[in-house]
Amino acid sequence: MDEVETPQTILQFAPFNSSVDEGFWHSFSSLKLDKLGIDDSPIPITGFYAPCSHPQVSNHLTLLSESLPSDDEQSSMESTSHGNRNKCPVPGILYNTNTVESFNKLDKQSLLKAEAKKIWEDIQSGKAVEDCSLLSRFLVISFADLKKWSFRYWFAFPALVLDPPASLVELKPASEYFSVEEAESVSAACNDWRDSNLTTDVPFFLVSVSSDSKATIRHLKDWESCQGDHQKLLFGFYDPCHLSSNPGWPLRNYLALIRSRWNLETVWFFCYRESRGFADLNLSLVGQALVTLSSAETAPNSVGWELNKGKRVPRSISLANSMDPTRLAVSACDLNLKLMRWRALPSLNLNVLSSVKCLLLGAGTLGCQVARTLMGWGIRNITFVDYGKVAMSNPVRQSLYTFEDCVGRGEFKAVAAVKSLKQIFPAMESTGVVMAIPMPGHPISSQEEESVLGDCKRLSDLIESHDAVFLLTDTRESRWLPSLLCANANKIAINAALGFDSYMVMRHGAGPTTSLSDDMQNLDMNKTKTQRLGCYFCNDVVAPQDSMTDRTLDQQCTVTRPGLAPIAGALAVELLVGVLQHPFGIYAKGDNSSSSNGGNIDDSPLGILPHQIRGSVSQFSQITLLGQASNSCTACSETVISEYRERGNSFILEAINHPTYLEDLTGLTELKKAANSFNLDWEDDDTDDDDDVAVDM
Amino acid sequence: MDEVETPQTILQFAPFNSSVDEGFWHSFSSLKLDKLGIDDSPIPITGFYAPCSHPQVSNHLTLLSESLPSDDEQSSMESTSHGNRNKCPVPGILYNTNTVESFNKLDKQSLLKAEAKKIWEDIQSGKAVEDCSLLSRFLVISFADLKKWSFRYWFAFPALVLDPPASLVELKPASEYFSVEEAESVSAACNDWRDSNLTTDVPFFLVSVSSDSKATIRHLKDWESCQGDHQKLLFGFYDPCHLSSNPGWPLRNYLALIRSRWNLETVWFFCYRESRGFADLNLSLVGQALVTLSSAETAPNSVGWELNKGKRVPRSISLANSMDPTRLAVSACDLNLKLMRWRALPSLNLNVLSSVKCLLLGAGTLGCQVARTLMGWGIRNITFVDYGKVAMSNPVRQSLYTFEDCVGRGEFKAVAAVKSLKQIFPAMESTGVVMAIPMPGHPISSQEEESVLGDCKRLSDLIESHDAVFLLTDTRESRWLPSLLCANANKIAINAALGFDSYMVMRHGAGPTTSLSDDMQNLDMNKTKTQRLGCYFCNDVVAPQDSMTDRTLDQQCTVTRPGLAPIAGALAVELLVGVLQHPFGIYAKGDNSSSSNGGNIDDSPLGILPHQIRGSVSQFSQITLLGQASNSCTACSETVISEYRERGNSFILEAINHPTYLEDLTGLTELKKAANSFNLDWEDDDTDDDDDVAVDM
Ligand SMILES: [Zn+2]
Ligand SMILES: [Zn+2]
Repeated sequence: MDEVETPQTILQFAPFNSSVDEGFWHSFSSLKLDKLGIDDSPIPITGFYAPCSHPQVSNHLTLLSESLPSDDEQSSMESTSHGNRNKCPVPGILYNTNTVESFNKLDKQSLLKAEAKKIWEDIQSGKAVEDCSLLSRFLVISFADLKKWSFRYWFAFPALVLDPPASLVELKPASEYFSVEEAESVSAACNDWRDSNLTTDVPFFLVSVSSDSKATIRHLKDWESCQGDHQKLLFGFYDPCHLSSNPGWPLRNYLALIRSRWNLETVWFFCYRESRGFADLNLSLVGQALVTLSSAETAPNSVGWELNKGKRVPRSISLANSMDPTRLAVSACDLNLKLMRWRALPSLNLNVLSSVKCLLLGAGTLGCQVARTLMGWGIRNITFVDYGKVAMSNPVRQSLYTFEDCVGRGEFKAVAAVKSLKQIFPAMESTGVVMAIPMPGHPISSQEEESVLGDCKRLSDLIESHDAVFLLTDTRESRWLPSLLCANANKIAINAALGFDSYMVMRHGAGPTTSLSDDMQNLDMNKTKTQRLGCYFCNDVVAPQDSMTDRTLDQQCTVTRPGLAPIAGALAVELLVGVLQHPFGIYAKGDNSSSSNGGNIDDSPLGILPHQIRGSVSQFSQITLLGQASNSCTACSETVISEYRERGNSFILEAINHPTYLEDLTGLTELKKAANSFNLDWEDDDTDDDDDVAVDM
Repeated sequence: MDEVETPQTILQFAPFNSSVDEGFWHSFSSLKLDKLGIDDSPIPITGFYAPCSHPQVSNHLTLLSESLPSDDEQSSMESTSHGNRNKCPVPGILYNTNTVESFNKLDKQSLLKAEAKKIWEDIQSGKAVEDCSLLSRFLVISFADLKKWSFRYWFAFPALVLDPPASLVELKPASEYFSVEEAESVSAACNDWRDSNLTTDVPFFLVSVSSDSKATIRHLKDWESCQGDHQKLLFGFYDPCHLSSNPGWPLRNYLALIRSRWNLETVWFFCYRESRGFADLNLSLVGQALVTLSSAETAPNSVGWELNKGKRVPRSISLANSMDPTRLAVSACDLNLKLMRWRALPSLNLNVLSSVKCLLLGAGTLGCQVARTLMGWGIRNITFVDYGKVAMSNPVRQSLYTFEDCVGRGEFKAVAAVKSLKQIFPAMESTGVVMAIPMPGHPISSQEEESVLGDCKRLSDLIESHDAVFLLTDTRESRWLPSLLCANANKIAINAALGFDSYMVMRHGAGPTTSLSDDMQNLDMNKTKTQRLGCYFCNDVVAPQDSMTDRTLDQQCTVTRPGLAPIAGALAVELLVGVLQHPFGIYAKGDNSSSSNGGNIDDSPLGILPHQIRGSVSQFSQITLLGQASNSCTACSETVISEYRERGNSFILEAINHPTYLEDLTGLTELKKAANSFNLDWEDDDTDDDDDVAVDM
C-alpha cells in the first residue's frame, strides 16, 4: 500500500460539551443580587474538565459554584488552585445581560473572535506554552431572570481554524500504536503525571518514548530539550471525548500552537483517556495529522458556539421547580428590595430592615395596613397586640382578615393577623398577643388591679424586646401608656390616628433621660443643638381620659373614609423606614418639605424625615409639621418618666384611677387655669410666630 | 259564716309577660339603619295580645315586625287595624338608646310614671272608655347593638296602684259562678263578640245577665245604659293569664278606671279565657273585688317593670347566630357605611355606590389596593383584567394574594383576585378576565391580528358594560387604548401611576363627542363654561410607544417604594367616590385645594374634587393639579375618536404597528418639530403663567 496515494481525510474534532451545575446558578444569583446589581461587565469564571473516563461517555466542561470569582480573593485562588485530578481548570468569561433582549442582541461572532484572539496571542507570546489551560479558553453568554429563577445561556469553545485544515493520516487506539513494552511504560508515566498534584491538572503534555521503550511525560515548555533523545515524540492532551473515531476539541488549538510554535508539518498526537482513574490505552488514541504551514501568521478564523440538540439556540434552565417554594418566595421578595436598592437607593441598608422587630399596638384598619407595608419593605418580625375579635364588618376594611375569620364567634384579631401574615409570606416571624392596653382615666376595681398591672408589665416587656412600636389603636387614651413606655425605653414610636377624613402620622422623639452610648457620642453635638421631638400628647393641655364610655354607636365604630387607613398606614411605615435608615435614627431632627433644607447632609437617602404628617382626603392635601417635646407632657416629660421609674405600679394605678393626677403632676392643671383666665380663642389665632410648631406645605 | 268577718285578701294580679318576635328586631334594625340613624326619639309601637287559650300557658304581649310604624302610613293603619282575634292591639312606646351606657342610665321610674300618667289621663278624660286598649299601654326601653346584632331590652306594663289595694272577696271558675243556663248564654255571647270583626279585639267589655239568664256583652261606653235592666253586671276583660288563683294584669288599670269612672266599691269582674277558639268558662274566672273609694283623685303611683327570671334586669337577645353569616356580613358592612352617612355625610348616596360597576385594568399592587378600598366604600361589583400570574414576590405587596396563589406555576391574578374578594366578602360580585391590553407601538404580525382585534373588542365591550374604569397597569402604552375607549364611551376613567417615590392619580374628563341627555341639559350651561378635563395623554408630546422591550430587570419590575401603591390606590378610589357623589359626575370641573373656591356650590359633599393629585413620599407632600383636554391628544381628542369611529379595526392596527401614526394624525409631529426649532428648555421654565396647568398646594 502506498500511503502517499491514500486519499487524505480532513481531521475532525468532537466538540466540547458544557454542563452547568445548579449550584453555579444559585451562586451566580447571589453574586448578582448581593454584589453586582445591574453591573453587566463580563465576569471571569473558571470551567473544569477532566480526561474522558468512560468508554461511552464524553466528559464535559463544567461550571460549578466555585467557578465564580469569590469575594475573598485569597480563598478564590485556593478553590481554583491546582491539584484536583477531576477538575482541570480552564479560564472562561461570562457575559451576563440584564434583559432577554440584550441577550438576543449580543454580537456572538465578535465575542467569539475576541476570545479566540486571546488564545492566538497567548500562543504567539508563549504564554500558552507556560500555562496550557489557556488553550481551552471558553465563554458563556447568559440572561439570568432572577424573578423566575430561570437562566438562558450559551457556551462557546473558541477554536482556531487552520486553513487549509489539517488532514488525518492515521488514527488508532494507543494500545495498537505502541508496542506492549511501550504501552506499559506510557501507562505508568501517565499515571505518575496524573498522580502528582503538580501535574495532574496540566492537560497538555509531551510523551517521549525512547528506543528502549521507556516513556517520559514532559511539560510543553520542555519541547526543545526533548529533541533528539527519543524514538517517538507525541503531543498528548487530556481528551474529554470518548469516541474512537475522533479526537476531542482541545486538539484544535493544540495543533494551532504546534504549527505556529514549532513549525511542524507532521504531528503525532496522543488523546489521553482513562478508566477507573488509570490510563486506558485501549480508549486512548494515537493519530498522525498533517498540517500545512502558513507563512503569514495572522490570527486565524474561529468557530465554537455550542449546539443545543443540533441547533444553534441557547440552552435554558429553570430552578424554580427544584427549589423549596418558601425559599423561592424569600428570594423573590429579597430580589425586589435589592432591585429597589440598585436602581434608586444605593445606600439603603436592607439588613437593618430585615432584622428590625416591630410591635403593632392595634390590629384594625391601620394595623393591617402597617403590617402589609412593613412586609413590602422586607420587615420580617411583627408582633400584634389587640384584644378584639374579627367582626363581620372588618374584612372589607382590615386587609388581613377574611369572612372565615368572623363567622361564629370570630377569631381574635391578633391571632388571625399572624395566620394571615404566614399565608402571605411563610418566612414571616410573627406573634399575636391578645391583650387590652391599660388606659388612664378608666378607673378599675381593686380586684382588677393585679390583672391590669400584669398587662402593664407585659406591654413594657414587649416594648423592651422590640425595636419599633406602632401606636395604631382607636382611642387617644390607649396611646398614653405605650407613649410613656417608649419614652422610658427610648424606643422608636410611630403614631397614626384617623379622623373622619383626615389623618395624622408622627414619630415620637427620643426619651427624656436617654444616655447616649459611646459610639453615639459624635452625634451628641448634633443632638444638643436641637430639642427633643414631641410625642402624641405633647401638644395637649388635657390628660388622656375615658373617651369610649357613652359614645354612640357611630362614634364607637370610629367611622373614617375608607381611603384614610391605607394612606396613613403606608405613611407610618415610610416614616419608620426613614428613621431606620437615618444615621441619627430616633435622634434625627424633624425635616419639613420646604426646599430650604434640601441640602441638609442629615437627609436620609429616602428623602426628608418629618416629625408629623397631617393630611385630608376632603382637600387632597398633606402637610408636614414639627413640634418639640413639652415639659408638661403627660406621657413623655421627664417629670412623668421619673415618677414612673420611682413609683412604678402605684404611679400607673394613680394615673388609671384619678383623672386629674397626670395633669396635676405635670402642671397642666395650673396651665389650664392660667389659659382660661385669659380666655384665649385658639381657633382664630392664626399668627405664624409660634416657635414650637412650624407648618409647611 | 259571717262574711264581714272573713279576713280580707289583697287582690293580686299575675304580671303580663312580654315576647318579642325576631322579626321585630330585624325590622327595627332596618328602620334604624335606613331611616332613623342616630335619632333616638321615642317610637310609637303596637303590642299584641289575646285571651289566654290554654289551661297551662299564659298569653304574652307580643311585638312583631308589624309592631313598628310603617313607612307607608296607609298600610300601617291596615296592618294594625282591628279584626284579628289573636292580635288585640295595645299602644306602646319604644325608647331605644344608641349606647349601652345611655340604656343603663335611663330613668326608668320617670318613664314608667309618664306612661302611667297617660293611662290615668285617658281614664279621666273618658278616652279609655271609648278605646279600652289604652288601658294596657306599655313601654319598652332598648339598646340595639347593630354591629353585633344583639339587643338589650326591658318591658314595662304600667299599672296604677290603688291605695289602699283592692281586696278580693271571692274568686272562682266562671262555670261555678254562673248557673248552667247563664253559663251557656255567656259563652254564646262571648263567642259572638269574639267572632265579630268589630269587637273581637276589644279586650274590655261589660257582661250583663238578665233575670231570665240571658247574657249580653256590651261596650264599656254603654255602662250607663246597662244600669237597672240586669240581674248581674260583670266587668269582663280578655285575660292573658292562665292561673286559677289570680286574675291577669289588665284588671289593675281596669279597676282604676271602674273606681274612678263609676265610683263603684264592689266590682264583679270576669276574666275571659278560651280553649280552642271558644269561651271556656271552666278556665275563665269570676271574682268580686272591694275597692276603697278615694276622694282625692290624684294620679296614683305606678308599677310594672317586667322581671327577667325573677330579677330586675333587662333581657337580651342575639340574632347573630340565627342569621345566615353572609347576610350578617352584608348587614354589618352596610351598617358601617350608614354610620358614616349618619355621622358625617347626610347627603351621601349609598345606592349609587352599591350599584356602580367598576372595571379594574391591572390587578397588581394598585389593582389590589383599589379593589380593597372600593369594598370599603360598599362597592359590590368589580371586574379585573390582567394577563399575569401571581409571582413569588407579589403577595407581600399585592394585598389580594397569598403564598398559595404562587406555588407551582402560579394562579392568574385575575382569577386569584376574584377568589380573594369572595373570601373577604361573600356578597361580592366579581369577575376576572385574563387578557392583555393591546398597546400602540408594539407591532404585531398578521397572524396575531385576529387575536389582538378580538382583545380590543373584548375591552371595548367591558368598558361599555361598566360604569367606571380604573387604569392601573404598569406601562404607559397599555393605558392608551382604555383611555381612548373611555373617551369614546364617555365613561369615568380613573388613572393611577407610580414612580419610584412619587404617584399620580387623576380622573379623565368627559369624552369629546358626548351629547348630553335631556335631563342633563341644565348642566350644559355649566359645562360649556369650562373646558373638558384632560386625560393621561393630554400633556404628552409623544405618542405612547413600546417601553417594555429591552428594559433591564429593575425597570421591568416597576420598583416603587412599598408605601406608594396603598396611597395612590386609596386616593384613586376616593376620587371615584367624589365623582359618583358629585351632581355633575364626569362633567364636574376640577377643584383645587386652595380655599378660594371653598364656597363653590358644585362641591361634592365629600370635599373638593380635583382633576389630578400628585404626591411624593420622599417629600411627604401632595398637590392637586388641573389640566384641560388637548386637541392634539393621542387618546381623547376629537380627531382620534372620530378616526376610531370611522375606521375601527384598521385605525387600531395602524396605531399598534406604526409608532408615528398617532403623532402624525394629531399633529404632534408638527408640534414637536416646531418645539425643537425653538430649542426650549422646559425643565428650567418655571414661569407661572401657563394657562393649562394650575398648580396648587
Ligand atoms: Zn410628649
Ligand atoms: Zn387626552
